[in-house]
Formats: sequence, C-alpha cells, structure tokens
Amino acid sequence: MAAPIDFYFDFSSPYGYLAGELIDTLAARYQRSVRWRPILLGVVFKTTGGAPLPSLPLKGDYSRRDFERSARFHDIAYRHPARFPISTVAPARAFYWLDGQDAMAAIHLAKLLFRAYFADGLDISDPETTVAVATQAPLGLSADAVREGMSLPAVKDRVRTEVEQALAIGVFGSPYMVIDGEPFWGADRLDQMERWLARGPW
Amino acid sequence: MAAPIDFYFDFSSPYGYLAGELIDTLAARYQRSVRWRPILLGVVFKTTGGAPLPSLPLKGDYSRRDFERSARFHDIAYRHPARFPISTVAPARAFYWLDGQDAMAAIHLAKLLFRAYFADGLDISDPETTVAVATQAPLGLSADAVREGMSLPAVKDRVRTEVEQALAIGVFGSPYMVIDGEPFWGADRLDQMERWLARGPW
Repeated sequence: MAAPIDFYFDFSSPYGYLAGELIDTLAARYQRSVRWRPILLGVVFKTTGGAPLPSLPLKGDYSRRDFERSARFHDIAYRHPARFPISTVAPARAFYWLDGQDAMAAIHLAKLLFRAYFADGLDISDPETTVAVATQAPLGLSADAVREGMSLPAVKDRVRTEVEQALAIGVFGSPYMVIDGEPFWGADRLDQMERWLARGPW
Repeated sequence: MAAPIDFYFDFSSPYGYLAGELIDTLAARYQRSVRWRPILLGVVFKTTGGAPLPSLPLKGDYSRRDFERSARFHDIAYRHPARFPISTVAPARAFYWLDGQDAMAAIHLAKLLFRAYFADGLDISDPETTVAVATQAPLGLSADAVREGMSLPAVKDRVRTEVEQALAIGVFGSPYMVIDGEPFWGADRLDQMERWLARGPW
C-alpha cells in the first residue's frame, strides 16, 4: 500500500471540516489511508503573519457566505458557530492522546469533534465539551480517561511537536494535504489531489 | 438572454489569467456572456489590507508551485513571469479605452495581454509593451490610436471608477465573479459557478 496522505487541519477551520468529511473516501478510492494531523492555526499564524479569514475586511463577509455555500455544495451539514474562530488546544490534545493508543479511533473522534463544532453548535474550545464529545456513542470513552489523557505532559508535548513539524515543512493554512511530498492547500484542491492519486504528477 | 457574468480581475493575477482562459466557454454553455472588468489589485489591497501571495511567508512558495500546477491541470500555457507582480495600470487603460468602442475587441485584447504576460514573458506594465500587444494580429490596432486612447482623461477616470465600484460591491481579490448578485472568488470556484448557472441557488 502506498504511503498515507498527510492531512493537516485546525479543528476551528471550516474548510478543514469540509475536507475532513471528504478525504477518507477520496483516499480509499486509491487504496490510500489518511494520517489526520490537527495543528493550531493560531500558532502557525504567528509565524506566517496569516489571519483568520473572518477578521479581514470584505474577505470576511465573503468567507462566511462561502463556508455555508461550499458545505451545501458538498451536501455537508453546516451551521456557522456562534463563537468563531476558537482555540483548539483541547480537541487537539484529546486527539493526540487517543492517537497514541488507537489511530482509527482518533480519526473517529476528530470527525465527531468537527461535527460537534460545525453542525451541532458545541464550543469544543471548552475542555469539558471536548470530553463530552469523546464519551458519546459509538466511541464511548471514559470521561476520566480523556480528561487525564489531555493533561499528560507527553500529550501536550506531542501537540507542540506536531505544530513545529508542520511549520517546518511549510504548512501555513488549513486544510493542507501532502501526497508523496506534493502539497495541496484548501478543500478546493481535492480535484487536483484526485488526479494526482489517479495518475501521479502532471 | 440572462444577465452577463461580471468577471473582475487584475492583469497581474495568475488565477485571474486561468479564469480568463476558462470563463467564456463556461458562460456560453449556459447562454451567458461575460463582462470583463479589469481592476487594480494594488489599490484594492490598500483598502482591504490584502497582500500579493508571493510576499507571504510559506504561502508564497506554495502559491508559485500552485500557479504552475493549476495551469497544467487546466492545460493552459504558463511561464511564471520574471517580474511579478507588476503594476497593471497600462493594460487596464488600454482595455477600457477599447471597451468604450468595441466590447468584444476589448475581451480579445484582455486575453492577448494575459497571454503576453503569463505565457510569453512580456512585461505588460510597460505601456509600450501593452501597445505592441494591441497592434498584433488579429486585433491589429494602430499603435498611435492605442497610445492616444490610454492617455485620455476619460479613460483614466474609467479605470478609477471601475476600481471604486468593485470595492463598493465587496471585490477583494482576483478573480472575483458575480452571477445574478452571487459572488464567487477564485479560479477554484468555477465548479460552484457551473452548478449555479445550471440550477440556480442551492
């Protein structure tokens, strides 16, 4: 089996959420797996000088409209969060804690967290909300285990290291995908990713 | 016939060039015409706080790669210009001068100017280069007529007014298209534009 696709995203990124709903199906069509790698865009923006889309004049209004229209375009449930963007330290820690034990379960948790924030209106920046999402069926993790896992120094370090590594290879936004060394930025590059997976470089 | 699609772009915008190579064919499939409307992104960025992609850390390197890859993806000739970005006052003036006389000829000129800059390596920020492009077959305009047209106060005013009007409706980047009041930003929204043209809002 070919190398997995690296999928960098922030849990507060609408286009990251859309890509997350689509990427596993796309990858599976080409016998690829996906390595989900949450990052903290706030930390990245400090290095790159980037800024959250909604904070930009004119672009902010358009972006809000485009989030919702793009979600409907792909038949994905989307309700723009009341608080946006948010800190995503809590969900990133929960993810990497679980990833250390069961990578597939961590991907499952990532999808639940994305949907909690972008479809169900839950504020996952609150660690207790993140814990509550992780205890839902079918994951059904123990709240105490998640809480404890999120507070482990090794887990906190893992989040930091992941963000540093992402910056080191040039990740500047979300979603950012890498296929065999080739970078693709944005949910609107899934078409080019598909051709790359099907035929390789062009 | 339904209202034309408004197509705002800067002659120095790679994604504007790509959209320009594709939009007329797309529009024609749905019995629409396209109103080409060059703007000056430098002026727009002063209002919006935007910046040319290549000037941004990390994003700049990616963008350069993405310009070339996206052009090949659409089978469009692309050679990244040695000077980039450039001032596009000269080509915008030539366009609006000709537009005042013959809208179809102006669109033709716009395509020649885009190709001169993005495929043939000509620096169209130089007014004499823009004039030379306009004199090429099959347009074959008189160099003196183009030179004179570009220097008319009414033409200079038209460029200013177009940029102001674009800002007033929220244009913040290139390409930026409006179909029946619905805005689409980026060459990578042609898929959503196509669905909008085929079925209307979703």
